[in-house]
Amino acid sequence: MRLLDGRTLSDKIKSEIAQEVKNDFLDKGKPAPHLAAVLVGEDPASETYVNNKEKSCREVGFISSIYRYPAGIPEKKLLEVVDFLNKDDEVDGFIVQLPLPGHIREQNIIERINPLKDVDGFHPVNAGRMMLNLPAFLPATPFGIMTLLERYNIETEGKHVVVLGRSNIVGTPISLMLSRKAKTANATVTLCHSYTHDLKKFSLQADILIVAMGKQEFVTADMVKPDAVVIDVGMHRIPSSDTKSGFRLKGDVKFDEVSKKCSAITPVPGGVGLMTIVSLLLNTLKAAKKEIN
Amino acid sequence: MRLLDGRTLSDKIKSEIAQEVKNDFLDKGKPAPHLAAVLVGEDPASETYVNNKEKSCREVGFISSIYRYPAGIPEKKLLEVVDFLNKDDEVDGFIVQLPLPGHIREQNIIERINPLKDVDGFHPVNAGRMMLNLPAFLPATPFGIMTLLERYNIETEGKHVVVLGRSNIVGTPISLMLSRKAKTANATVTLCHSYTHDLKKFSLQADILIVAMGKQEFVTADMVKPDAVVIDVGMHRIPSSDTKSGFRLKGDVKFDEVSKKCSAITPVPGGVGLMTIVSLLLNTLKAAKKEIN
Repeated sequence: MRLLDGRTLSDKIKSEIAQEVKNDFLDKGKPAPHLAAVLVGEDPASETYVNNKEKSCREVGFISSIYRYPAGIPEKKLLEVVDFLNKDDEVDGFIVQLPLPGHIREQNIIERINPLKDVDGFHPVNAGRMMLNLPAFLPATPFGIMTLLERYNIETEGKHVVVLGRSNIVGTPISLMLSRKAKTANATVTLCHSYTHDLKKFSLQADILIVAMGKQEFVTADMVKPDAVVIDVGMHRIPSSDTKSGFRLKGDVKFDEVSKKCSAITPVPGGVGLMTIVSLLLNTLKAAKKEIN
Repeated sequence: MRLLDGRTLSDKIKSEIAQEVKNDFLDKGKPAPHLAAVLVGEDPASETYVNNKEKSCREVGFISSIYRYPAGIPEKKLLEVVDFLNKDDEVDGFIVQLPLPGHIREQNIIERINPLKDVDGFHPVNAGRMMLNLPAFLPATPFGIMTLLERYNIETEGKHVVVLGRSNIVGTPISLMLSRKAKTANATVTLCHSYTHDLKKFSLQADILIVAMGKQEFVTADMVKPDAVVIDVGMHRIPSSDTKSGFRLKGDVKFDEVSKKCSAITPVPGGVGLMTIVSLLLNTLKAAKKEIN
């Protein structure tokens, strides 16, 4: 069994990015790529995520900025913030951290972002360009999975990929990306979800099983074909007295038993999660290099 | 075996549209919905298709116009035509008939169309909004298939749909539409294509088999599960001395043998093809009613 180690790989890619920032930006007298984040309210998970982004930016030499607003900010005002960042030539890409407070219509905010700065890849133009196999900013988590498969030389062409979970930010886009005519793609993809009958019938067929259901340790060894590749997108905090933080992370896959049966698997933590932030950095680099247009 | 009769259904929907044009537009003193088509060059298939659209528009009481340009029109000039139609308040929706001559970059033209008038549903914004399950203009052929399934009360929820062919205008969008959380959807969908190994393994699992491969009579009875529903998107002209036109139409499915095994099937001609033009009329009606925004 091979461990698809998101930590080692994300460190490696970050050092590649840092090198590129030095060679292609700083040494040429150009400013480093700049990622901005808009944070509304004081959701602890969002705080953590945005802080991690800032830390990763520093590691690779990006400029990073955070725009903080109180939870009560009116939608109109937040749209003006987006307009400002759209126009600011010093910002290459930006994200508006989700979820937003209930009085703000998220879709209005997302669709206001200039698609050329939409490094989260949530704007419909980027979703559509991805579907049409045109250059686009890919949403971070599925892009991270693609990078992981590519860097670990997991063959996808002609393989049967089964995706469990059809969210807009993971399951649906990864099923599209892997079924397209492209490198690290050309797979036969089945997309399963809460309405699927006899899930096991499908999961057992998977050469590559991608689990993004949001159900803790749902996938057990009896649901996995011997020697399958298993990608676990789940992330669940469970209380624990063994750790300083007071919790441990678990995925959607029962790692202990599934890891004995499969040929390769991503751990939680240390798997897909770390690839997500790296994807955001890669998207920001693309934005700074004007690779998407 | 039930014949999913696109002719009867499309006639029924056209008379519903005609009624709506009368009640909600003409009787209220409003102009009828207006569909424009841009036709470049003299490709006979395109001519036929555009003429059929014009005829269908007349049948339902729509205003219809055709903008004809010689094959040599520069891309810049065609972009100006698109800009003009985007701005023309009297035009509710328009299409630029594809394919375009080789010197014109089709994607440039498609992306120039105002997404709110993009009744072909080819603009990335509409593809993306469809993927994200937001209101959008759906591409005509998959929209026609959805309408056919819905009007014939074919249960899709929890069913295994297998789609053969991953084109941007049929296979990929229909696989997305049927896997979304929505009415006439919620299916488990497998998307197969030229890189799929052992296609029959997949087609034999299908409760609903959608064939859009562009290979004449490719699907034979041994590839179909008993009592499956079969949707044939293929359209092949073969020479024939039996018809006045000198040709007959065949689909991607070997109708004679498959129809004996399945529970329902679309014929060719008289199936999906006729639903495509009806979808374009429905999209134009939506555009005129400003239902998508």
